[in-house]
Amino acid sequence: MGIPTLSQAKLNVVPFVSVDHMMKLVLSIGIERVLTELVEYIEVDFRRWQMFEKSARVASHSSKGVIELMPTSDGDVYGFKYVNGHPLNTISGRQTVTAFGVLAEVGTGYPVLISEMTILTALRTAATSALAAKYLAAPGARAMAIIGNGAQAEFQALAFKAVLGVDRLRLYDIDRSAGEKCVHNLAGFGFDMEICSTPQAAMEGVQIVTTATADKRNATILTDNMVSEGLHINAVGGDSPGKTELHRDILKRSAIFTEFTPQTRIEGEIQQLPADYPVTELWEVITGKAEGRQSAREITLFDSVGFAIEDFSALRWVWRNVRGTPFYQELDLLADPDEPRDLFGMLLRAQAAGASSALQEKDDRPSP
Amino acid sequence: MGIPTLSQAKLNVVPFVSVDHMMKLVLSIGIERVLTELVEYIEVDFRRWQMFEKSARVASHSSKGVIELMPTSDGDVYGFKYVNGHPLNTISGRQTVTAFGVLAEVGTGYPVLISEMTILTALRTAATSALAAKYLAAPGARAMAIIGNGAQAEFQALAFKAVLGVDRLRLYDIDRSAGEKCVHNLAGFGFDMEICSTPQAAMEGVQIVTTATADKRNATILTDNMVSEGLHINAVGGDSPGKTELHRDILKRSAIFTEFTPQTRIEGEIQQLPADYPVTELWEVITGKAEGRQSAREITLFDSVGFAIEDFSALRWVWRNVRGTPFYQELDLLADPDEPRDLFGMLLRAQAAGASSALQEKDDRPSP
Repeated sequence: MGIPTLSQAKLNVVPFVSVDHMMKLVLSIGIERVLTELVEYIEVDFRRWQMFEKSARVASHSSKGVIELMPTSDGDVYGFKYVNGHPLNTISGRQTVTAFGVLAEVGTGYPVLISEMTILTALRTAATSALAAKYLAAPGARAMAIIGNGAQAEFQALAFKAVLGVDRLRLYDIDRSAGEKCVHNLAGFGFDMEICSTPQAAMEGVQIVTTATADKRNATILTDNMVSEGLHINAVGGDSPGKTELHRDILKRSAIFTEFTPQTRIEGEIQQLPADYPVTELWEVITGKAEGRQSAREITLFDSVGFAIEDFSALRWVWRNVRGTPFYQELDLLADPDEPRDLFGMLLRAQAAGASSALQEKDDRPSP
Repeated sequence: MGIPTLSQAKLNVVPFVSVDHMMKLVLSIGIERVLTELVEYIEVDFRRWQMFEKSARVASHSSKGVIELMPTSDGDVYGFKYVNGHPLNTISGRQTVTAFGVLAEVGTGYPVLISEMTILTALRTAATSALAAKYLAAPGARAMAIIGNGAQAEFQALAFKAVLGVDRLRLYDIDRSAGEKCVHNLAGFGFDMEICSTPQAAMEGVQIVTTATADKRNATILTDNMVSEGLHINAVGGDSPGKTELHRDILKRSAIFTEFTPQTRIEGEIQQLPADYPVTELWEVITGKAEGRQSAREITLFDSVGFAIEDFSALRWVWRNVRGTPFYQELDLLADPDEPRDLFGMLLRAQAAGASSALQEKDDRPSP
């Protein structure tokens, strides 16, 4: 799993994948193929779950939102994601969530990739949901309700199509225009889509429901009566303390699956349940350590909050696939003196090379 | 202390300062002026110490080294540094320590600066040492011994010259060529310099000693008999568990000053002392909450390990001073859809703009 550097000759350089390059990379490969490959990458990493260094997010909270660092390592490669969550950002035309990530070699500590992760996080979240459903949904599931038709909806739809063959969508959002946006964006991808006027209507005849609403506080998007036997619930939107989507009664009827349980107890739907309520981690199902769906009538619930290993897998995918493409630029990020002990000499040589007049101080800078 | 964005019109863009740009920025202003200003920035932030979110480093250890994230926030601005420490890196021509850092707005979570920090860390470490000496060294100190003449030596010398007027250096390193490198690099900066053949000789007649050796395990660079009354010891090299430079007896004769004590107890010289041994934090001296040097005969010891607030101050300085210069580039780091809920639509519009054929899958990529 080691990551070779892009160029041994240029130790100072770190490849950077911008938003524009990420879009071009994804579009050049094809979004459904990208989602399928991300599922494979995440599955590979979930199979070797116990190799990873796992920890809770490192969070800095304020009244406006949160900034988090999510590090992990498999012993060969280290990765972290910077991600913020600021619900009021839309007022100023900003994203509520933005993200970027870094991969580095554990053996040298040298970063080998810096990448935008706003688009990549949307992709990996959908890929993780599809991976969970591959193991947990009833066989042959083709129809999915999507409750909450915001930024994550189309990615979920395409991941479920690519991995499970889901081709029938029933859309609901309190803002009907969000559903219309989905129908517009997904035209041409081969879905049979219907915008529904109530969550109940959206649930009719589906085998899977994805809940992905935003900016809600302990909301109840689904109530117990809407949940039929055999349903797989892909609960994406309940992902931080005080933010849940499902009525507690649904949780108690379901077999619950998590990513990294200590984090999910704080951030997921199961924050509504006692701290010792039994749940199963998805990697246990994937490796055969635990059972997934146990009957056609069982209700399965993937309580997704997003975990560092998924970001690591996604960054690993980018790193492998961006090579040989024009979709990155090289950043001069690392000081690379000829003689490592002579960092100051590197400065002097830069000066001698004609950079500027170092010893003659001047101060024609604009005032701060 | 709020940080305005560089351009309200380009919310997707984050300024990036490369190694080359950092060198040019520092050289264009003048290295001694930069060091003086960094001392001012760090002092300002140490004066408002209690406003900061402070935590230990988030470390990922391996047999080869460590990768750390060092976050902090003053409530308006958030910053973190990525830094590695890999002693064997020099074998492959790499730096043992590399670093980069990020500043972000707490209010929006949007990053506002990404910067190289290998050079910047060398500068801020020296600036922090000079700041401590300004408060702790005997008045009128002009002569300094530097034990360990590696990558940090010249930066220390110039910071002490800029802030305290130190103009006499006595250099010692087990590798004489390191001292010769210093003399060569510092020629023209107005120092009276002498390379000494023993640490004892280097200590003759100095009022300050800087210890900045590398790759030592609980070494004893200084022994008690070399330490005269009134000396200020700037201990820079003992900065990680199991890595110290001073004999324990010296510590017990000295008034000890730290940055953030919980971290210094683990990483600094005082890891040799009981966990309740009394020390004073530098910010307490700067704010007048505690006394610094109490007599001309007292031995003062700054047990420096490097703390996140110093990196924050240095990044703040870069951010303020890089504006209006050509010494940064703009990174397209943040997804900026017209409609925040329509991330997928942004992808589709990129495709419509002629990026590529998204729906037609192809796979002419090189195999990973």
